[in-house]
Amino acid sequence: MSNMLDTDRATALDAARVAFRAELLDAGLLIGSTVPGIYGRSGAFEAIISGLDAVLGEMARPLAATVLRFPPVYPRVDFERTDYIASFPDLTGIVSSFDRGDREHRELLSARATGEAWDGWLDPTDVVLTNAICHPLYATLEGRLPVGGSVFDLSGYGFRREPSSDPMRLQSFRMREFVFVGAPDDAQEYRDSWLDIAIETLASLGLPVSAVPANDPFFGRAGKMLISNQLRENLKVEITVPLYGDLHEGTAIASANCQRDHLTAPFDIRTSEGALAHGACVAFGMERTALALLRTHGMDVAGWPGEVRALLGL
Amino acid sequence: MSNMLDTDRATALDAARVAFRAELLDAGLLIGSTVPGIYGRSGAFEAIISGLDAVLGEMARPLAATVLRFPPVYPRVDFERTDYIASFPDLTGIVSSFDRGDREHRELLSARATGEAWDGWLDPTDVVLTNAICHPLYATLEGRLPVGGSVFDLSGYGFRREPSSDPMRLQSFRMREFVFVGAPDDAQEYRDSWLDIAIETLASLGLPVSAVPANDPFFGRAGKMLISNQLRENLKVEITVPLYGDLHEGTAIASANCQRDHLTAPFDIRTSEGALAHGACVAFGMERTALALLRTHGMDVAGWPGEVRALLGL
Repeated sequence: MSNMLDTDRATALDAARVAFRAELLDAGLLIGSTVPGIYGRSGAFEAIISGLDAVLGEMARPLAATVLRFPPVYPRVDFERTDYIASFPDLTGIVSSFDRGDREHRELLSARATGEAWDGWLDPTDVVLTNAICHPLYATLEGRLPVGGSVFDLSGYGFRREPSSDPMRLQSFRMREFVFVGAPDDAQEYRDSWLDIAIETLASLGLPVSAVPANDPFFGRAGKMLISNQLRENLKVEITVPLYGDLHEGTAIASANCQRDHLTAPFDIRTSEGALAHGACVAFGMERTALALLRTHGMDVAGWPGEVRALLGL
Repeated sequence: MSNMLDTDRATALDAARVAFRAELLDAGLLIGSTVPGIYGRSGAFEAIISGLDAVLGEMARPLAATVLRFPPVYPRVDFERTDYIASFPDLTGIVSSFDRGDREHRELLSARATGEAWDGWLDPTDVVLTNAICHPLYATLEGRLPVGGSVFDLSGYGFRREPSSDPMRLQSFRMREFVFVGAPDDAQEYRDSWLDIAIETLASLGLPVSAVPANDPFFGRAGKMLISNQLRENLKVEITVPLYGDLHEGTAIASANCQRDHLTAPFDIRTSEGALAHGACVAFGMERTALALLRTHGMDVAGWPGEVRALLGL
């Protein structure tokens, strides 16, 4: 297919994604909704997620990481200290609610009854949807870190507003993330060594993974510069799996990321010696990895290779 | 303390809640944020949640329920089909995002740089925060149910906008819920029998539980009528635990609920014979139950009664 025209290729890729989505819905693994990228999941799907969670916990055991869990929303003041709204405004989710009186509520309901928009009666709250599960962490680390830095085991829901018919692109999804915060050299070394371990772990599940430089979807014209910076400095490496033959080079299921002082500077997080700390992480998309396993090994888990099922406890 | 004045009593109760919250933060079980009711949780806290999840799964085994999991946001069109915005506007969370161009983004960033509000550049999206984890389920059941109805095992995050210094009142929290949808008589019977089983299960964890008629915080003047309906018809029973001696009669950690046709009518869900189905559920607040266990047995899990630790696998 490598001599297909670009437009034919894009059409064929779209069709392959829609077909994969239909297979997942037909098998009852995902439960569709009226909004692209918002799905229910079956018990069989969740069993894969649980198995994967256990495999990742085992992988990370030598880290002796501090376990922390954050909810799917976090304080807007912390969000404001990052530059997320500058880089990814279109992926952001801000929460509004009703904070007025009885009279305004009657007005809202009247508008609603006649089919008018009633959002005008809502006001922004002080919480936003969590975009990356490490963001709430950084707000808790303001000040000095212990000698040698700190390692955290995070897991939770992220939100990104990117409706798509590609079942790999969810708006609400879970990530498991192992984050180091400490001296800059240690952060770089952590990123590099855990990239290798992550690749090994995912390969052990029979996934044909590759490591490729990431280019995040920074917004707009100014964003183009940020993309080229990210690539030039090799800050983020994605671990991808090909899902659609040679129609597409592969979809990211995990990444290893040098965040440098991107989140430590806004929250003034310092090493034990007082220097500005750096952050680094290895992060796994839980639904994406489960979907990659289903695409690679088939819709029927009972037919997966025995060693993969054994590792996942399935 | 029963002869305290009402205002003294309210002050003492507030102080007791704040003290409980401080104990949880000091023990590192909850991690505070700048927003009341938004917390991180430690590994020790999450171990209690996992244990509780296993206990509830064991309890519900005879149901052979269909496992479904929904994300913390769901389609706004489904939300619109319920009357949640009429009954609980103040608890609602609507998601907005940026859906405009480069020029508007520059305007947003300029406003932000000068400290102005930038919400005006956002637009409501087609997703809302999930208020009750059974709401996304009902949208998937439109049509006829199988003979005998259906039973579902749900678990996930709910959102309710009710900032509070009471650590039992979270804005973002997890629930485990077992839902029956089927013939009205079967729904009533399901509610009654699973109320008893839920009480037994929670009592087996050493919690001094009581069953009390619920009065949900329906909004405004019109809401007062809904509260008295709910009480008169005994539609919802809460399972409460006293946490602050005789300062407060007890906080709900679970409930058993006859939803009648409240959610089946909007989604036109029918029995196998074509009659309008009824819904019923037994629902457990995961964080609330974990907090009630900590309050009852102490902050140090190692010191909890052996049989409770054994049940929870702690």
